Amino acid sequence: MKTITAFAPASIGNLAVGFDILGCAVPALGDKVTATRTEAPGVVIAAIGGLDLPLPTDPARNTAGKAALAILDAGKADFGASLVIHKGVPLGSGLGGSAASAVAAAVAVNALLPRPLDPIAVLKCAMQGEAVASGSLHVDNIAPSLFGGIVLTVGIDEPRVISIPAPSGIAAIVVHPRLVVATEKARGILKRSVDLSDFVWQSANLAGFIAACYRNDLDLLRASFEDVVIEPQRQALIPGFAKARAGAMQRGALGCSISGAGPTIFAWAPAAACPAIGAAIAAAFAAEGLDSTQLLVPLDGPGAYLVDT
Amino acid sequence: MKTITAFAPASIGNLAVGFDILGCAVPALGDKVTATRTEAPGVVIAAIGGLDLPLPTDPARNTAGKAALAILDAGKADFGASLVIHKGVPLGSGLGGSAASAVAAAVAVNALLPRPLDPIAVLKCAMQGEAVASGSLHVDNIAPSLFGGIVLTVGIDEPRVISIPAPSGIAAIVVHPRLVVATEKARGILKRSVDLSDFVWQSANLAGFIAACYRNDLDLLRASFEDVVIEPQRQALIPGFAKARAGAMQRGALGCSISGAGPTIFAWAPAAACPAIGAAIAAAFAAEGLDSTQLLVPLDGPGAYLVDT
Repeated sequence: MKTITAFAPASIGNLAVGFDILGCAVPALGDKVTATRTEAPGVVIAAIGGLDLPLPTDPARNTAGKAALAILDAGKADFGASLVIHKGVPLGSGLGGSAASAVAAAVAVNALLPRPLDPIAVLKCAMQGEAVASGSLHVDNIAPSLFGGIVLTVGIDEPRVISIPAPSGIAAIVVHPRLVVATEKARGILKRSVDLSDFVWQSANLAGFIAACYRNDLDLLRASFEDVVIEPQRQALIPGFAKARAGAMQRGALGCSISGAGPTIFAWAPAAACPAIGAAIAAAFAAEGLDSTQLLVPLDGPGAYLVDT
Repeated sequence: MKTITAFAPASIGNLAVGFDILGCAVPALGDKVTATRTEAPGVVIAAIGGLDLPLPTDPARNTAGKAALAILDAGKADFGASLVIHKGVPLGSGLGGSAASAVAAAVAVNALLPRPLDPIAVLKCAMQGEAVASGSLHVDNIAPSLFGGIVLTVGIDEPRVISIPAPSGIAAIVVHPRLVVATEKARGILKRSVDLSDFVWQSANLAGFIAACYRNDLDLLRASFEDVVIEPQRQALIPGFAKARAGAMQRGALGCSISGAGPTIFAWAPAAACPAIGAAIAAAFAAEGLDSTQLLVPLDGPGAYLVDT
C-alpha cells in the first residue's frame, strides 16, 4: 500500500486582462489531497474535510475524483485510488478552489503511477476535474495552481503553458469577503459577444500587460492593467466593488480587479503599499456589511507539490 | 527658406493577432515628403508624384497635409509649409500607404520647427493625418512607420509605443497582388462584435505571440500566430487567400495572414524559407489571374528618417 499527499495552491484567475487564459498562484491558501493506492480499480472519495460545504462524493462528479480518474486512465493504471480531500480554499470565492482540488488530486495520484505522466498530461487531467465544477474546460486557475507564479496558457486541446516573469518588487493583495458567488452564475451573466472596440481595447491592455511583465515596466503595467470586458459585467455581483477599486487605485495599486468569478478582489502593487490597499478594499466591503480576510501574495510563488507525511 | 525631406516606411498592420494595435515596418517601400517652410501660415500641397492614383490636394483632406497641419498647430508655428509628396507605397494595398504619407509629412514638418515635438506628439499628429484616409484613429501602421521594427501601441488618447523584440533569424515575406481593396470596405465588412469564445482564443494567441517574441520561442510563435477573428471575415476579399496561406504554412511559415486590410499577404518564417513561401503565395495569386510582387523584409527595420538632399 502506498499513500501520497499533494498540496495545490489557490489562484487568481483572469488577472483582469486575460479572461480564461491568465492566472497567478496564491500559495498561502490551498487544498490537500491524500491518495492511497487500492487494488480495486476506480476512485473512491473516502473523506472530505476542511471547509464545511457539502461536496459530491461520487468521484465522477467531484473535481478531485474526476481528475484522479483521468490520471488513472491516462496512466493505464491497473489499480485504483482512495482520496481524502482537505479543502483550504473557500468554494465560490473566486480563488480557484475547484482547480486546487483537481490539481492536488492529479498530482497525488500521478505520483502513485509507476511511470508518472508529464506535467502537460497532468494539466489535462486536472482540467477534466475542473470541468466537473465549472461546466467547461478552462485553465486560468489550473495552470498557475499546478506550475506556480504567473502563467499564460495558449490552447485548450494542446495547451502550452508559459511562465510570465513577475515584475520585481510587486506583490498581490487579495481580499476575500464572506460572500459566495457561484461560478456558473458569474459566467451566466456574461454576454456571449464582445463589442469590436472593446475587443481592441482589451487586446491592447493584454499585450501591454504581457510586455510590461517582460520589460519590468511598471508604468506600462499600470496603463494596461484594466479589464474593460468582463469586470463591467460582473462587478454588480460584488457589493462595494467600485469603491474598493477606487480606494485601491488611490493608494498606489497598479491594477485592481475581480479574482476569477469573484467575489474576491485582488490588486497588484509595490509590496509596501499592499497593506493600505488591502485595508481600503476591506473598508469598502465593511461598508456593505461584509467581513473579509486578506492575504499578501508573492507573484512568483510555487505551484503544487508533494507533501512529506 | 528651409527644405527638409523625410522618408517613412510601409508597414504590415495587425500582424494577424493584434488588430489595430500591432504592426511592423516594411522599410523596402515607403513614401517621401519634402516640406518647405513658407511665410504664409497653413499647408499647401505643391505636388504629388510617384504612384499615379488621384489624391486630394486640399491639405485638410490629404493625409500628409492633415498631419502637417497638426504638427504646425501643435508646434505653435508662425509659418506654413509647402509639401511635395512622393508616393512609394501603393494605395489600397494593405501596406500602410496613408500612414507612410502622414508619418513622412509629420517628421519633415516637425524638423522645420524651431523646437521639434517629441516622438509621441509627432505620432499623435500623424494619427490625425491617417484618420483622414481611414475615418478613424488607429495606430497599427503609424507607430511602426514612425518607430520601425515590431511595435505595439497601447492607448489612443495617450498612446504608449512599445518595441517588441524580433525573433532571431526570422524575416517577413510580403506578397502584394495587383489588386486594390479599399480600407473602408475591408473595415465595413467586419462584424461589430466578436464571439466570446473567439475573443478568448484570439487573446491567447496575442498573449502567446508577445511572450514568444520576448522568449525567442519559435514553437510558441507558430502555435499562437493565427487570426481567428478578422482574417475569416476579410479573406473573401482576397482571391486565392486560402491556397496562399496553406502553401506558406506547408513551406515552413510560422504564420501567414493579411497585411492590414489586404490584399497583400505576409508570412513570417526563417529567412531561408522565405523565397519558397513567397513563390507559393505568388502561385496562388497567379492561379486567380493576379500578378504580384514580393519583398523580403527584416523584422527590425528602421522607422521614418530625414533624408539628406
